[in-house]
Amino acid sequence: MNIPEQDDKTIFPEGPSWVAGGGATSAKGWRAAAFAAGLKAGRDDMALLFSDLPCECAALFTSNRMPAAPVQYDRPIAAKGKCRAVIVNVGCANACTGPTGLADAAETGRVAAEAAGIPAGEMLVCSTGTIGRRLALARVLAGARALPSLLDREGGARAARAIMTTDTVPKQAAAEFELRGRKYTVGGMCKGSGMICPNLATTLIFVTTDAPVGRAALRLALKAAAARSFNRITVDGDQSTNDTMVLFANGAAGGRELAPGAPGWKRFEETVCAVALSLARQIVRDGEGASKFVTVAVEGAATAADALAGCRAVANSPLFKAACYGGDPNWGRVICAIGNSGAKCAELSTRIWFDDVCVFDRGRIASDAENARLAEIMHRRAFEVRIDLGMGKCADAVYTSDLTHEYVNINADYTT
Amino acid sequence: MNIPEQDDKTIFPEGPSWVAGGGATSAKGWRAAAFAAGLKAGRDDMALLFSDLPCECAALFTSNRMPAAPVQYDRPIAAKGKCRAVIVNVGCANACTGPTGLADAAETGRVAAEAAGIPAGEMLVCSTGTIGRRLALARVLAGARALPSLLDREGGARAARAIMTTDTVPKQAAAEFELRGRKYTVGGMCKGSGMICPNLATTLIFVTTDAPVGRAALRLALKAAAARSFNRITVDGDQSTNDTMVLFANGAAGGRELAPGAPGWKRFEETVCAVALSLARQIVRDGEGASKFVTVAVEGAATAADALAGCRAVANSPLFKAACYGGDPNWGRVICAIGNSGAKCAELSTRIWFDDVCVFDRGRIASDAENARLAEIMHRRAFEVRIDLGMGKCADAVYTSDLTHEYVNINADYTT
Repeated sequence: MNIPEQDDKTIFPEGPSWVAGGGATSAKGWRAAAFAAGLKAGRDDMALLFSDLPCECAALFTSNRMPAAPVQYDRPIAAKGKCRAVIVNVGCANACTGPTGLADAAETGRVAAEAAGIPAGEMLVCSTGTIGRRLALARVLAGARALPSLLDREGGARAARAIMTTDTVPKQAAAEFELRGRKYTVGGMCKGSGMICPNLATTLIFVTTDAPVGRAALRLALKAAAARSFNRITVDGDQSTNDTMVLFANGAAGGRELAPGAPGWKRFEETVCAVALSLARQIVRDGEGASKFVTVAVEGAATAADALAGCRAVANSPLFKAACYGGDPNWGRVICAIGNSGAKCAELSTRIWFDDVCVFDRGRIASDAENARLAEIMHRRAFEVRIDLGMGKCADAVYTSDLTHEYVNINADYTT
Repeated sequence: MNIPEQDDKTIFPEGPSWVAGGGATSAKGWRAAAFAAGLKAGRDDMALLFSDLPCECAALFTSNRMPAAPVQYDRPIAAKGKCRAVIVNVGCANACTGPTGLADAAETGRVAAEAAGIPAGEMLVCSTGTIGRRLALARVLAGARALPSLLDREGGARAARAIMTTDTVPKQAAAEFELRGRKYTVGGMCKGSGMICPNLATTLIFVTTDAPVGRAALRLALKAAAARSFNRITVDGDQSTNDTMVLFANGAAGGRELAPGAPGWKRFEETVCAVALSLARQIVRDGEGASKFVTVAVEGAATAADALAGCRAVANSPLFKAACYGGDPNWGRVICAIGNSGAKCAELSTRIWFDDVCVFDRGRIASDAENARLAEIMHRRAFEVRIDLGMGKCADAVYTSDLTHEYVNINADYTT
């Protein structure tokens, strides 16, 4: 982990009832397994997440027009909404591999489903790693055959570790809520760490629950969670060939079905969003080479779209991110990015804070004393940039990390 | 300079009649001066470019919604089309400085014009440097008073050096053409080097000619030149607070006025474009921390917009740029960026070359031998990535540099 201290409030903010050490198998009826198939030397490189009961599911896939073979394979299966398992390999994205790659993904899914004793249509397949290489199919199939026998109620943490690529720590979270005396749990795991716009490294996110939820309602919860979490750390439409987010519900905790309008729905949706946001923040904290966690908040925007555009323009600016790395009190990078964001703004209406220090107030620039305090804030491991556009009442926030030497190191020889 | 060898063809491609060592004062009637005003220690930090004859001019300014004070000051003056001089300071962008900053820019222009003996409305003012600091006005005014007396026909090279910020080499070019036995010259200088999307460091570009051209025609030539040069190394609308490009024509070479439709117009416009493109390529070659010059060409696009979008998506991808730095033969970064570009494309229609090596052919991936040749190409100081989308007949090209440790160094402590 790049940030040694476990600053719990960054990852697990107050509010939800977090499950200590929880993850994708915290909810009832969920098991997971990991396996070293020889795709990456000396470590687990495949994982299986599995529900003992039939499931409802909803999935979101990359909008990249060159989707990887597993994404092509999964889309029609996920659309039926009955998947209860997902098998994952790292080391190879199985992307740009044409019909052969698609056949490889299908064979992986078929073999894994058979070994797990479920129909092929209930097994999703995900890959992450280098683009433009064929899957080492024999090894992957060996993994697919072995994984079902290794499934474990306590397997979530090991599975979260197995799906890591340039991640330096596994990412998982779980939270619970009560409804009419019944406890429901939502848990999940994810991988992903390339944090610089416009190309996010592959993100895979799997969220599980034991609540009874139908497919249409799950889809609403998934979209709300994605909008408030992963879409706040990246840019819509700028995605890797393999990005996948799935929400599974097996109903193992019993009770009446949860749906919009019914009692408890809001609590369920909030819990899914909280778990997804925690996972998203963990990705930012573990951004490739990242040493800082930066929150970019815009308020006073004329429209919601302006607020988000302003946040993203600042959060994606390599110049701003490099200044964060160096702790350079160069708030001009912020105002330049805002001016380019397309958001309605004007110099004499704009105010900018770094944590509690106002560095620009509608034409008034920071004093030397304020700049000194700014430099101190920018050397913190986590800080917030807040921009009031003075144009309206809309607000938003995006999370980002700094641009470091280590980022260049990682990506200068990713495949070698 | 980051690239030691002077590969002339990268900067001065065959075609135009280049003036060896030429620059902004190569055209008749142009003089320039540089001055050390104490804004940056131990070097020239102000420059004046001046025509001995009255001029026509056309200018393009940043589309950033937080334009710097000099941009606010210049816009109405340039709109009248009669400017014959520009005074430049480095070290301070005079941006986000409110009404005080605007008054400082106006005072600089007024004092410089008075010292040069021309109306204030014929003197443009440009600043580049840190945003959010007040101009050291006394020093700048001292420079404004001193510069006119230092004007020199041979002053172009020294002025080009004086306007550098993070540039490591001055940038200038000049070319000439003959028309009815008369020689016309187009020359220019520029500064700028931040090369990573979405925030280009300030670009200032001044192109001068001794051809007789009216304001409306100049504006056409300027727009054509910008579209084919600087807008091919950056992204429209993503600009610094200070970006400025000006084309001046003083008619000192005599002859009949050049205008669209008249004889010689095409030669004039092509020469302006060639000079602008050379200057733009010099910026890429001197990109902050850059070690490589990469041409990204898209062909077979369904529309012209698709071709440009595809070029930019690849050229702006930090992952691709980091791979170029490391010479990592990871062509998957190219296809991932294309898939995200919004351009119409499909895996089974796409072909990708690096120089003469085809690494992806409509579903067929590179062999080990091809990947080895690819690695060799990516270690060259200059190479081309060519993508055939197989969707139509449109093509475009964009120039970029690699993302290096040095880029992070420069921007991690720009102001300190």
